[in-house]
Amino acid sequence: MKSQDFGERNLTMLVDFYEITMANGYLEQGVGDRIAVFDMFFRKIPDGAGFALLAGLEQLIDYLNNLKFTAEDIEYLRGRGIFCEEFLRYLEDFHFECDVWSIPEGTPIFPNEPVVIVRGPIIQAQLIETMTLLTINHQSLIATKANRIVRAAQGRGISEFGSRRAQSFDAAILGARASYIGGCTGTACVISDRLFGVPAVGTMAHSWVQMFDTEYEAFKKYAEIYPDNCVVLVDTYNVLKSGVPNAIKMFDEVLTPKGFRPKGIRIDSGDIAYLSKKARIMLDEAGYPDVTICASNSLDEYIIRDLLLQGAKVDSFGVGENLITSKSDPVFGGVYKLVAIQDKDGGYIPKIKVSESIEKITNPDFKTLYRFYNKANGQAIADCVALYDEEIDENEPYTIFDPVATWKKKTLKNYTVRKLMVPIFTKGKLVYQCPPLQEVRDYCEKQVDLLWDEVKRFEYPHRYYVDLSDKLWKIKNEMLSQYNFE
Amino acid sequence: MKSQDFGERNLTMLVDFYEITMANGYLEQGVGDRIAVFDMFFRKIPDGAGFALLAGLEQLIDYLNNLKFTAEDIEYLRGRGIFCEEFLRYLEDFHFECDVWSIPEGTPIFPNEPVVIVRGPIIQAQLIETMTLLTINHQSLIATKANRIVRAAQGRGISEFGSRRAQSFDAAILGARASYIGGCTGTACVISDRLFGVPAVGTMAHSWVQMFDTEYEAFKKYAEIYPDNCVVLVDTYNVLKSGVPNAIKMFDEVLTPKGFRPKGIRIDSGDIAYLSKKARIMLDEAGYPDVTICASNSLDEYIIRDLLLQGAKVDSFGVGENLITSKSDPVFGGVYKLVAIQDKDGGYIPKIKVSESIEKITNPDFKTLYRFYNKANGQAIADCVALYDEEIDENEPYTIFDPVATWKKKTLKNYTVRKLMVPIFTKGKLVYQCPPLQEVRDYCEKQVDLLWDEVKRFEYPHRYYVDLSDKLWKIKNEMLSQYNFE
Repeated sequence: MKSQDFGERNLTMLVDFYEITMANGYLEQGVGDRIAVFDMFFRKIPDGAGFALLAGLEQLIDYLNNLKFTAEDIEYLRGRGIFCEEFLRYLEDFHFECDVWSIPEGTPIFPNEPVVIVRGPIIQAQLIETMTLLTINHQSLIATKANRIVRAAQGRGISEFGSRRAQSFDAAILGARASYIGGCTGTACVISDRLFGVPAVGTMAHSWVQMFDTEYEAFKKYAEIYPDNCVVLVDTYNVLKSGVPNAIKMFDEVLTPKGFRPKGIRIDSGDIAYLSKKARIMLDEAGYPDVTICASNSLDEYIIRDLLLQGAKVDSFGVGENLITSKSDPVFGGVYKLVAIQDKDGGYIPKIKVSESIEKITNPDFKTLYRFYNKANGQAIADCVALYDEEIDENEPYTIFDPVATWKKKTLKNYTVRKLMVPIFTKGKLVYQCPPLQEVRDYCEKQVDLLWDEVKRFEYPHRYYVDLSDKLWKIKNEMLSQYNFE
Repeated sequence: MKSQDFGERNLTMLVDFYEITMANGYLEQGVGDRIAVFDMFFRKIPDGAGFALLAGLEQLIDYLNNLKFTAEDIEYLRGRGIFCEEFLRYLEDFHFECDVWSIPEGTPIFPNEPVVIVRGPIIQAQLIETMTLLTINHQSLIATKANRIVRAAQGRGISEFGSRRAQSFDAAILGARASYIGGCTGTACVISDRLFGVPAVGTMAHSWVQMFDTEYEAFKKYAEIYPDNCVVLVDTYNVLKSGVPNAIKMFDEVLTPKGFRPKGIRIDSGDIAYLSKKARIMLDEAGYPDVTICASNSLDEYIIRDLLLQGAKVDSFGVGENLITSKSDPVFGGVYKLVAIQDKDGGYIPKIKVSESIEKITNPDFKTLYRFYNKANGQAIADCVALYDEEIDENEPYTIFDPVATWKKKTLKNYTVRKLMVPIFTKGKLVYQCPPLQEVRDYCEKQVDLLWDEVKRFEYPHRYYVDLSDKLWKIKNEMLSQYNFE
């Protein structure tokens, strides 16, 4: 099985029913082939964080590449009794024709900017709403959370251990993938290694220790089989009175005589700060200062930060449910909104969703996204959402302003600017090659490095600037002025 | 595609790496075929609730029935360089040989009682840990949450609308299934209807309204196509000033003249209590007292309860992210623990996992589970965890006691008792037929009805009694007394 096989599952019918009623409706009303533009964007970063990470694009591509309604799908839809035959024939012969742009995986992203843009016949662009959101929402959520946890560990490795608590199969498999993009060093989930090359790691559970008559025997038996990479779980009975002494005895009596160097111990319960410090002393005094301590017990970025503040002697962490579900904030709220319709001359009629809540008003029109960097040190300064055909000349000063508090202005000089949106599909044809996962992970690390520390803070981070271009801001304000908000 | 096809995806490699290192280790140490017993149980009910619901058994069965390592899986494992050839051959010829018992789907379950029991060669019983937990944890979580939301709505229908915010594909597909078990009336997720018969529903998004020049035109166009089941979304611009008046105008001008009765309106933003009451009056005054109001905007059991307390005139609710991720508590913490090893005479050596936290100490030994009901009214009184071969005679009084506060006793008379565990696999052969999903849903509703209202309360519910049999309690206490807890 290649990694691609994962994508070959036909998920075409993973749509909300209303997408199908609308698609059929557009066709019946003769507007199905009108070209529409939809933006995927989000309004709020989970955990009140300063930035999120985009992930899931590879799976979105797999899905779009495999869009196909089977005979049984058509039969099911016909059985609903509300769709016209012309529509069912259309689905039978479905060929994806949309243009898709996206921000590459591993890129920091911010609220209210487009992260995926879809342009195409509305009958099609509407149908892919659910899966576009689902795919990007899930992996972006987990990559973002993983990156927080990784940063809390200050260079110590984080392994993703959460499969058993994942919200079903793909959540485990793709959650491990997203965690790796976010900076984890590996996963416990074997299939994610097999499919995506996320390094799978793991040694023993408490059941191994319980299977043998004594803890020492369990460690000895394990070391006989895996002398090269020997990590033992020391908390089945009592970490300091039994687990660590038995581990040291096994190191002395089994590994050392055979010329093997032990690798580590793992602590999975109890007070990690206290136990790891005591265990560290015991290991050092026994001549094993290089033997590492791994901790894993309902950890997250806050607990890891606190443990390290208290001087916990932990070299790596295994993180389970709090990572794989992003437990403290388990929803990435991406939305998919109509922003423009093409007119007969090929121009665009901007569309807006107004709302009584200001933050729910959408940015209209067919757009693109720029990121400004400080030319001197490469740091990201601000993003600018612009009309799709606006160009920014790096040699000219550029004034950005807050789209709500418009008097807040800043003129940029000595900057470089990068178009963040890359073409993924052109008229339904895939034109993008996903980089290897390892490259995505490296790219992500570098991009996060370019953000200000103030934006990376866990609590009350500085809000990164996301500006609208002057032209776009005028179009939006013009449209809003036509609505009656009483 | 039949519903079964969903299960034919090979998820054998969705295991934690340590399950494979241990399995290989058991084989190399010559203990792979020792018969072990594992319990799946959980310690805490999400949201501090009084009961949970078991779900996911059908998918666990699919997985166990399809366990198979492909040539590529074996190649991957060989490439890791730490597994012996005998083990790889064993996996190549893998035949599932375990016995599995489970509580049926839709049954209320409680902390610290076994919900799934696996008995078999430890090399196999260990390998299925991750998927057993993952499958049952996820769907039990969602079914439990769905049931809370359904109960909050006091008879009004709840539709599951959360696919786009689900934690990946299966979370959407199987989340809709679990929601249906928990009492939802339907889902937006088409594939869940197609695969599992969860009724899929949906009409239009804001984009439909935005696609046409006016809101009225959008409603009219929709009604022309779907006159029979016409529900329109009224909050794209302004619910009371535009949406509801346009809906009524369309009812009057398009549906009524053709002899169709409109079905409903949907409100997806704003203050649902206020808007629904005003909209109700407008609809009633226009002669549409039978037209329903559906609300959908970040709802959960607490908000629905509050809306109804405030007299919101809502007939049905669509619930998205808060249901599909169980947002307020997104982890169902089932664990899988070794509880016994068979000795040479066919008896069982009980195993226990001790811990400094009392609530983390496991119940040892090969067990079964009884539920007592009041003979007069059928209400569930208590559960009793007993040794696997203990029988309870309904004609004799039975004294239950709190396993921690042992002085709390209660003698039951006039009860009926039911063995909750049913055989699923016997020596690897499937011996259980999953009931149709609709039956599971009906069964679930009836079982929840048998619980005391005090157990069903949202906040600080009464703790349902889960007792240990006298014999089991003695075995456990005996074992604990041998450990040094200093």
